[in-house]
Amino acid sequence: MKYKGCVVKLILLISFFEGSNSVSYTDFDAFFKNITSGKNINLRPVLDHKSKVDVHMFFHLTYIQEFDEVEGKLSLSGYFNISWIDQTLTWNSTENGIEQFTLEEHIIWKPSFIIGNSYDGVTEKNQDHSVMRVQSNGVVTWTPGDNYNIVCNADVSRYPFDTQSCSLLILPWGYTFGEINVIPTYDYVVQWWFTEQHTWELIETSVVKGENLPMLEFSMKLKRYPMFYVLNLILPICLMIVINIFVFLLPPESGERVGYAVTVLLAIAVFLTISSENLPATSSPRISSISILLFADVCISAFTVLIVILSLRYYHRKDEYPVTKFMRGFVNISRKVRCEVCCFRKKNEKYYSEKENEEQIKWTDVGKEFDIVCGIFITVVVFIVHALYIIDVAV
Amino acid sequence: MKYKGCVVKLILLISFFEGSNSVSYTDFDAFFKNITSGKNINLRPVLDHKSKVDVHMFFHLTYIQEFDEVEGKLSLSGYFNISWIDQTLTWNSTENGIEQFTLEEHIIWKPSFIIGNSYDGVTEKNQDHSVMRVQSNGVVTWTPGDNYNIVCNADVSRYPFDTQSCSLLILPWGYTFGEINVIPTYDYVVQWWFTEQHTWELIETSVVKGENLPMLEFSMKLKRYPMFYVLNLILPICLMIVINIFVFLLPPESGERVGYAVTVLLAIAVFLTISSENLPATSSPRISSISILLFADVCISAFTVLIVILSLRYYHRKDEYPVTKFMRGFVNISRKVRCEVCCFRKKNEKYYSEKENEEQIKWTDVGKEFDIVCGIFITVVVFIVHALYIIDVAV
Amino acid sequence: MKYKGCVVKLILLISFFEGSNSVSYTDFDAFFKNITSGKNINLRPVLDHKSKVDVHMFFHLTYIQEFDEVEGKLSLSGYFNISWIDQTLTWNSTENGIEQFTLEEHIIWKPSFIIGNSYDGVTEKNQDHSVMRVQSNGVVTWTPGDNYNIVCNADVSRYPFDTQSCSLLILPWGYTFGEINVIPTYDYVVQWWFTEQHTWELIETSVVKGENLPMLEFSMKLKRYPMFYVLNLILPICLMIVINIFVFLLPPESGERVGYAVTVLLAIAVFLTISSENLPATSSPRISSISILLFADVCISAFTVLIVILSLRYYHRKDEYPVTKFMRGFVNISRKVRCEVCCFRKKNEKYYSEKENEEQIKWTDVGKEFDIVCGIFITVVVFIVHALYIIDVAV
Amino acid sequence: MKYKGCVVKLILLISFFEGSNSVSYTDFDAFFKNITSGKNINLRPVLDHKSKVDVHMFFHLTYIQEFDEVEGKLSLSGYFNISWIDQTLTWNSTENGIEQFTLEEHIIWKPSFIIGNSYDGVTEKNQDHSVMRVQSNGVVTWTPGDNYNIVCNADVSRYPFDTQSCSLLILPWGYTFGEINVIPTYDYVVQWWFTEQHTWELIETSVVKGENLPMLEFSMKLKRYPMFYVLNLILPICLMIVINIFVFLLPPESGERVGYAVTVLLAIAVFLTISSENLPATSSPRISSISILLFADVCISAFTVLIVILSLRYYHRKDEYPVTKFMRGFVNISRKVRCEVCCFRKKNEKYYSEKENEEQIKWTDVGKEFDIVCGIFITVVVFIVHALYIIDVAV
Amino acid sequence: MKYKGCVVKLILLISFFEGSNSVSYTDFDAFFKNITSGKNINLRPVLDHKSKVDVHMFFHLTYIQEFDEVEGKLSLSGYFNISWIDQTLTWNSTENGIEQFTLEEHIIWKPSFIIGNSYDGVTEKNQDHSVMRVQSNGVVTWTPGDNYNIVCNADVSRYPFDTQSCSLLILPWGYTFGEINVIPTYDYVVQWWFTEQHTWELIETSVVKGENLPMLEFSMKLKRYPMFYVLNLILPICLMIVINIFVFLLPPESGERVGYAVTVLLAIAVFLTISSENLPATSSPRISSISILLFADVCISAFTVLIVILSLRYYHRKDEYPVTKFMRGFVNISRKVRCEVCCFRKKNEKYYSEKENEEQIKWTDVGKEFDIVCGIFITVVVFIVHALYIIDVAV
Repeated sequence: MKYKGCVVKLILLISFFEGSNSVSYTDFDAFFKNITSGKNINLRPVLDHKSKVDVHMFFHLTYIQEFDEVEGKLSLSGYFNISWIDQTLTWNSTENGIEQFTLEEHIIWKPSFIIGNSYDGVTEKNQDHSVMRVQSNGVVTWTPGDNYNIVCNADVSRYPFDTQSCSLLILPWGYTFGEINVIPTYDYVVQWWFTEQHTWELIETSVVKGENLPMLEFSMKLKRYPMFYVLNLILPICLMIVINIFVFLLPPESGERVGYAVTVLLAIAVFLTISSENLPATSSPRISSISILLFADVCISAFTVLIVILSLRYYHRKDEYPVTKFMRGFVNISRKVRCEVCCFRKKNEKYYSEKENEEQIKWTDVGKEFDIVCGIFITVVVFIVHALYIIDVAV
Repeated sequence: MKYKGCVVKLILLISFFEGSNSVSYTDFDAFFKNITSGKNINLRPVLDHKSKVDVHMFFHLTYIQEFDEVEGKLSLSGYFNISWIDQTLTWNSTENGIEQFTLEEHIIWKPSFIIGNSYDGVTEKNQDHSVMRVQSNGVVTWTPGDNYNIVCNADVSRYPFDTQSCSLLILPWGYTFGEINVIPTYDYVVQWWFTEQHTWELIETSVVKGENLPMLEFSMKLKRYPMFYVLNLILPICLMIVINIFVFLLPPESGERVGYAVTVLLAIAVFLTISSENLPATSSPRISSISILLFADVCISAFTVLIVILSLRYYHRKDEYPVTKFMRGFVNISRKVRCEVCCFRKKNEKYYSEKENEEQIKWTDVGKEFDIVCGIFITVVVFIVHALYIIDVAV
Repeated sequence: MKYKGCVVKLILLISFFEGSNSVSYTDFDAFFKNITSGKNINLRPVLDHKSKVDVHMFFHLTYIQEFDEVEGKLSLSGYFNISWIDQTLTWNSTENGIEQFTLEEHIIWKPSFIIGNSYDGVTEKNQDHSVMRVQSNGVVTWTPGDNYNIVCNADVSRYPFDTQSCSLLILPWGYTFGEINVIPTYDYVVQWWFTEQHTWELIETSVVKGENLPMLEFSMKLKRYPMFYVLNLILPICLMIVINIFVFLLPPESGERVGYAVTVLLAIAVFLTISSENLPATSSPRISSISILLFADVCISAFTVLIVILSLRYYHRKDEYPVTKFMRGFVNISRKVRCEVCCFRKKNEKYYSEKENEEQIKWTDVGKEFDIVCGIFITVVVFIVHALYIIDVAV
Repeated sequence: MKYKGCVVKLILLISFFEGSNSVSYTDFDAFFKNITSGKNINLRPVLDHKSKVDVHMFFHLTYIQEFDEVEGKLSLSGYFNISWIDQTLTWNSTENGIEQFTLEEHIIWKPSFIIGNSYDGVTEKNQDHSVMRVQSNGVVTWTPGDNYNIVCNADVSRYPFDTQSCSLLILPWGYTFGEINVIPTYDYVVQWWFTEQHTWELIETSVVKGENLPMLEFSMKLKRYPMFYVLNLILPICLMIVINIFVFLLPPESGERVGYAVTVLLAIAVFLTISSENLPATSSPRISSISILLFADVCISAFTVLIVILSLRYYHRKDEYPVTKFMRGFVNISRKVRCEVCCFRKKNEKYYSEKENEEQIKWTDVGKEFDIVCGIFITVVVFIVHALYIIDVAV
Repeated sequence: MKYKGCVVKLILLISFFEGSNSVSYTDFDAFFKNITSGKNINLRPVLDHKSKVDVHMFFHLTYIQEFDEVEGKLSLSGYFNISWIDQTLTWNSTENGIEQFTLEEHIIWKPSFIIGNSYDGVTEKNQDHSVMRVQSNGVVTWTPGDNYNIVCNADVSRYPFDTQSCSLLILPWGYTFGEINVIPTYDYVVQWWFTEQHTWELIETSVVKGENLPMLEFSMKLKRYPMFYVLNLILPICLMIVINIFVFLLPPESGERVGYAVTVLLAIAVFLTISSENLPATSSPRISSISILLFADVCISAFTVLIVILSLRYYHRKDEYPVTKFMRGFVNISRKVRCEVCCFRKKNEKYYSEKENEEQIKWTDVGKEFDIVCGIFITVVVFIVHALYIIDVAV
């Protein structure tokens, strides 16, 4: 296709003047006035009004300002390179030596476009005062640029290890399929002037032409750099829940177990509140895993408080009430299981001596055994919950 | 009605050129200049100036940015499809082969509209530079689009299970009932290009024509997705108040009861403060249920603190002062009631033995009994309060 | 006054066409061009240039967005209905059947107005592209609307039970008293389209004409709906200070008194910080009562901490040091006074027995008595302080 | 100077029509068209192009929106009264009875000005569509108004008792010293329409003409109303540090000393964090005194924690290890010094008895004495630090 | 180069009128109309259209509003001085005595520029209504000014001791290398009107011409004033971690060790959360040192909690279970090493006596020794971590 070659050749900063004769100011002025006079800005520049105008376009992405998960908005900067053939603006360049000229004013026809999924509303983008360049074969190139805010609902289910897919839709406004035909010059988003942003990595782009609509869809895939969140959110939470388990190491005689457990519970609840402020208030497509993880941690911590309180009841139960049979059975079974599991450990005399005189099991022994069993149980639960989270965000 | 058919047929992206002859650029230009010359932009385009202009309109909703409960503002994007017959712009399409044309400039009359309940003030919406399309039968179609902020006072009484009803009012500005007549094309808000938002679900739309005003009211009903708030607000509060009840399980000998109760109280007060920031500072039409629930929880927690302190007084009262008769009676009645209620439980010897030697009731027994009674009472109150909340938001 | 009747009759949505003959588009166009030609947009439309132009105006208030106490800004939406007689724009309506027409363009004179106390600066309001309507007797009606931010210094001394008085000043800009005369059509702010806001209640409006200035002052009185603040600020504070008093019920043997008192102190200090963020940083005309109340509560709470510490010193003082005479006197007087006050109470033997053997007063008795006296004192102070606050905001 | 009198006489609301004949609309229109025709908007209106244009100006300040210490921005509203002689716009007012007229359009020359230290960038202020008034002697008066954001680096070293000096620089843009000469009409900022703000008091204004630049500098001195900050920041901090000292009154037997000290330390650290958010992140010209005070308080509080811990070590040291000689000396000297200082106090037997049997000094005595000495020392340090702060901000 | 001299001479406020004759208004008007007529605003003003236009430019920086690390945005105010020779605008100044004139309107050609790395999108900067000055030799000077937001990704790895390098890229839009040639007048950013900002110090500027692009890059190096952050962030953290170490001084008998350690841990976690809000959520080029320091501190503090709990287990272990051999060995080695290290200390009898009767080592001794060893270890770790931080940010 001969035309496409023209467009590529025309890319702004590569095109140079090939050797040609000198053109004086007055000659140029006369030529300019002649070629632009009598243009109707409302009519598509085709000699036969039944034919389509082929509009070639590509998008230069220069910067991604921000992806706002909470509002579902992607802000990016860039400009479009839009070119078409104005059949009423052709001349013989060899005759007068003029190969191309630029014009600022609204004196020739221009397609009007809208950003189809703009966050700021459906408004046209033809108010730009960009310079347009006209070549002797009628190719007009227009490079309108702006800051585009586009709608992009965040899928935060794997936050902060998430990847977002956003699209910039551009379509001619007020023209039908039979009047304007949009053709992507490249099948990717051009990044020649792209400045890397430090929060999101642009990992993939593509351009799709609308099936039954004169529309182009510039798709971008963004991957979050997760390290910051790992260091400031994930690891502190893991640390907190580990500290929560420490309560079972704390001797009951210290009198600080409940205070300790409640304090850690509050700390985790505060983290839940803080992290929920950075997430969109949405349950679609799915609640984010980190929210569920945090809530699970809060529940585990609350359950720990309950266990610590119950265990404390056994410790403080006076020995004038005899230990019930059920409890004695629980202690014996628990001790045996632990002994089996730890059979590789040196069977120290302490455990044996306790086992022999079963009748002497006291309430404090019940508390101690309850503590150990619950501690192991909670540790296992914490491990499973966090493993599930890792599996969920990683796979 | 023949006219309405035209409007529907005209919808932007469906209308194609039917087979017709070719029209050259110069012919089209001549036709354009001829048909648009001598138009007075200030006069309604009716041949008899006493007749009304029928304006058909419908609203395309493309995105709901945000519903701000605190400010009472709904931000949405979309565009209006407005069409009317310009009686001075008709031609014989079979004669010259031109069926329709577009124009950008302000060279023909256009109705001026305002958003009646705009949040940003009463300003007209006719500054848009949208392309207009004129058909040979005089039908002019205009599709102005924007980001609309409309006033919508939130009814947060059932937050976060609330449903909001908002309306977009559009009315011609500066024209009377006898000059312009607005007719809704559809009786719903068009959602062909609608992008789902993840915070609110659009469950119902309708269009109502103003009774004695040339006004259209586009109503939308939005339902909040509640899961996020359930996970981050409701469930943590419930957990907190359950943890609050745990204080009655904590043995008084631990010396941590008051600290525990106060810490939980503070945590609930902090939740009250955080959640109140997300609610509009309003008591109309009703204070939100969640506010009342939280305040009730704060009160319950404060009451728990009081009970824990009083119970501690009994524990620490020296037995040199004999237990008063009233207290002895309270303990006995309480024990009997509990025994009756738990009659299905095995009557264990502990309770009987205590009951027999009533004279030996000590202050610690009073404290223990007081604890049990208050614990049950608070648990029941918590249950009732939360059940009332669920009934309130669900029904 | 004949003119005023015209204005009222002209109000937008009431005026209808009275029976008259049909007017064709071309006739109307010719009339329009004839009547508007040769108008000088810079000259006041009076036949004798020494005479004044009477400008009648009223203000339609449609919505109050927000009253920002901290910035001292009232945001409201509405539009002005401004009408005057253009003496160069009169015609005989019976002759040509045209009674009125509308015009959008800037082709006739318009008074330029500014909002005298605009928050956003002194800028004119004549850039609006509102439609103007001209009647055959020369009455021109112009309805410019906008979102107005006006300066309104908040008087938060009774917050959250406060009432604010704000004024919207409008005055012609660039014209003297002898050139333009502003006349209020109504002596109140028109609220036909007013949408109630849920934070502030509009309780009173009035219009005052400037004494020696061509200025109108539209005054509005706003009353805050206080329930939300009562539930989220006032009641929690009251609860907190009551919980603070509970410390005197806490037995000293519990070893949690100081921790309890300090925790409550911190909670009140946090409330002070939070509530101060919602108040303007001003001490004019007066520091707000709620600030003073909160600071008083902080002081009371700090004083409570001091008392608890001192009382603890008596408890922990070893009895090898004899109780000083002063202290013994204090205990005796305190006991007697309490006995007198509670004389209606059954004089139980406990008190008597203690009173008899005065010599046996121990340091713990001193602590207990000190506690009781201070507890009563603090309770009374709290009661008085809060009563004073209620009197202050209510009266 | 005759000219200056004109300007003053011309001030907007004072100037009235003096008795003169009637002027018809058509006469005025003809005069207007005649006098304004052929004006070149780009040429300074002087008959000899080598002469300067004297521009008289003064500034009406209407409101101070906000002084933002953190961003270093002063937002104020007001308008300039700018007047000059247009030598091409003079007429004989006695001849035609016209003394002055107003014009809105850009049909005569106007000086272009910029705000030299605008926060929002270097942009011209001649886009305003203000009405201009022309008098028969050629004096043109122009009153452009706006909301001005000016750069004003805050000096917060005495916060919240600070006084800020800000300047509004206005200078003609694109004209040299030899073309335009700016002359201040008054040597102060005009406050006829000034609305008092409740956060800052405007205590002094002045106008300075640039030495070697055609520039005017409108200086304003603002004083902060400190009461709000005293009540919400200074007094709570003082209270906190006093409460911190109370720890020395708390008996060591209570077992709450360390918890108390750490809690108070955290509270002060939180205050440090909160107050630092309201201060500009600057150390120029000096770190603010309140920051230093707060940091000093944090250090004192941390030091208190250390002392409390050390003192606790002495209390808990078992008496089987004899008290070292150094410690015994410390206790004796300390007791003596305290005795000397308190010689006016009744020498009660307790101290004497302890002094006599020096050998019986126990570790608890060492702890007690250490406590007393450190308590006094910390109190003195707190007193000095706060006294230094008061001296610093007051002087 | 003769031309450059012209530009420098032309700098706004230095150029004065040299002695010349008077020029009347009408003469000037006639000259102006003559010289500006027939200019085509779309054509570059060169007599031979194949030649380049040399555009000399420099940038006046007036103020740096803000550097936003989180968004990666630098906001600055300033204006460009852009000058070129308009070959169609030359005249003989000695003939008519006119040396220069100014013009506001868009009646001559102007190069269009864009800010290549603008944060707000790719938009042209030729909408400014700045006055242009034309000299008799054809030199046109244009000084467009604005507030520029430029993209500048922050490198916060050394925060708050960081230095940022930002560039302002300006390039002609729509013109090729062969049409416009940009030449920097100075090789630095002009700061004649620069107002110092108190947060950032501008330490170095430079101007670089694009290699193969007609582009200028104005580079600025900014250094943060760190004192504020040292006082409000770094020092409080250091204090906190020192206070954390104090826990090892706290005697285990106090019963407050675990509470103390947990409270300090929470305080450090809160600081982590606060400081992370002021940092960009990025891990590129590197996670900031302060984040790593804070996380290390949190880990150290959590580890301290673990140690305190373990040490408490030894203290509370009943002596009926004999101390294991491993532990006895640990205690002995630890004592010996400490003795060696502290050999300069007086070998007091306490240590010796304990060493001799090794058999009598109790669990409390194990706890004490464990405490001492861990305390020393943690202190060393804290020291190393903070030393590494200082080395990292300083070097």
